[in-house]
Amino acid sequence: MIYGDMQKKREIALKKVKDAINADGGTTLLATGITGDDARFALAAVEAGARMLEPNHPAVALARGHKGVTSMHAAEEVRHEIDFDEMCRVTAGVRAVVGHEIYITVGVPGSFTETMPTPFTEENAYALSRAGADGVHTHKSTLADLKDMVELCHKFGMLVDAYIAHPADRHLFGIPAESPQQVADTAKAMQDIGVDLIGLMTGMSYEGVEAGEIPDVVRKRLEALIRVTTVPTLAEGGINPVNFKAFIGTGVNILVVGTAFDDIARKAVTDTVKIFLER
Amino acid sequence: MIYGDMQKKREIALKKVKDAINADGGTTLLATGITGDDARFALAAVEAGARMLEPNHPAVALARGHKGVTSMHAAEEVRHEIDFDEMCRVTAGVRAVVGHEIYITVGVPGSFTETMPTPFTEENAYALSRAGADGVHTHKSTLADLKDMVELCHKFGMLVDAYIAHPADRHLFGIPAESPQQVADTAKAMQDIGVDLIGLMTGMSYEGVEAGEIPDVVRKRLEALIRVTTVPTLAEGGINPVNFKAFIGTGVNILVVGTAFDDIARKAVTDTVKIFLER
Repeated sequence: MIYGDMQKKREIALKKVKDAINADGGTTLLATGITGDDARFALAAVEAGARMLEPNHPAVALARGHKGVTSMHAAEEVRHEIDFDEMCRVTAGVRAVVGHEIYITVGVPGSFTETMPTPFTEENAYALSRAGADGVHTHKSTLADLKDMVELCHKFGMLVDAYIAHPADRHLFGIPAESPQQVADTAKAMQDIGVDLIGLMTGMSYEGVEAGEIPDVVRKRLEALIRVTTVPTLAEGGINPVNFKAFIGTGVNILVVGTAFDDIARKAVTDTVKIFLER
Repeated sequence: MIYGDMQKKREIALKKVKDAINADGGTTLLATGITGDDARFALAAVEAGARMLEPNHPAVALARGHKGVTSMHAAEEVRHEIDFDEMCRVTAGVRAVVGHEIYITVGVPGSFTETMPTPFTEENAYALSRAGADGVHTHKSTLADLKDMVELCHKFGMLVDAYIAHPADRHLFGIPAESPQQVADTAKAMQDIGVDLIGLMTGMSYEGVEAGEIPDVVRKRLEALIRVTTVPTLAEGGINPVNFKAFIGTGVNILVVGTAFDDIARKAVTDTVKIFLER
């Protein structure tokens, strides 16, 4: 009864993604961190030109001080404890402020590779879609789990963005694939099960990257992904206002940026507190 | 059975306030806005030297995109709709991250001059105190309502900061008093009913204030407040990293700053989004 409606909902969502990519010359921004989950900052990002936002549960764990976590690494350990309803409230609040033209994909308990049993249910998918999500931001590490996610999300009119990880990554945020050939094969398999946007985890969060450079191994993996996919592509991990330029021209469509926004906004606050107190 | 315990809790809270004032040479900072309600930014403010934080319900309305509000003025109209439990969760989360040395006073539905019937109950005071509040940030506009607040807050070990407003203010955020003499009389009356910290609403949110200047009428009202009170004093409204210097040396103990932090952090995010997109 709703299959056609939900197919149309996905088409509208995909058009938002493609319009954003085209408007930004082939490579656009998916703004996350504080710009994804705090309505004040989501609006600021949109007013500055961002058309894609990503609230996610580890960032909400940090925002809410859940279990006192103060680093993204610590947040990853407790993120599954965030109430699913809280992520729906965050989504609805950001949607209420930024309007319906903006693409919102949401990371929720169950959509990542969780360390505790955290199912993503029909009721969850329904609630998240009704809260205003265009897509679900997933970081599953097996194709079988990812396939289940895709079916549920599509049923309720949401796209799925999913990622390819490196087997040596500190936290596994995608299907592991090492060589460029393995990346290409994995990307094709993800596309075959219906993933709507496919990203590469750069692994750059964990190694210093100089201005304007991408490590050669990352570049080759990214090229393999872009070569074989027909869906929009993403790069996530350690991308900041300096090193992002190295991604322009690679053909990647979407740069996922979160920590850089948090760090820059936090520094602005820190500097201002010091003005008030160090006189 | 808990009267003595709660008196001791208030003494500890007041010591935090006085230590902060002394550490900062007589005039310290009460950081609010995003530094009050988002654990990521509360921690940043504390790491930069802030010792007093203030989460409040209109700022949370903005953070959560409640009813799609995007301005502080609009947030004031719907702030009473924020769940009391949400303010307790915010308080507990900020407390979990900043530790027990930091003074936290919280604006909650019912502690301001609300436009809808919004009682602040025994259960509310108990829950907020247990969540980690040292004080309650109030903006009541009659002494009778304020007296009720003071009794409830003291019963559960929380201090009360309350404010003197100008009758012509756009939103009434305190007991109205116009002339310096009326300000002095009102401050004495507030002190007599047990208010622990007394502040002046500068009204400067609504008029341009040049660098280093306080309008003469504000200065005279502030001097009247400081002259008659023995409790710590505050100034709130439109204080920013430029004009705050005019308050240093007036004898006021605490500068309440929120919007300035939000604006500065938002600008940092806005500028960064533009770097990614305007290449």
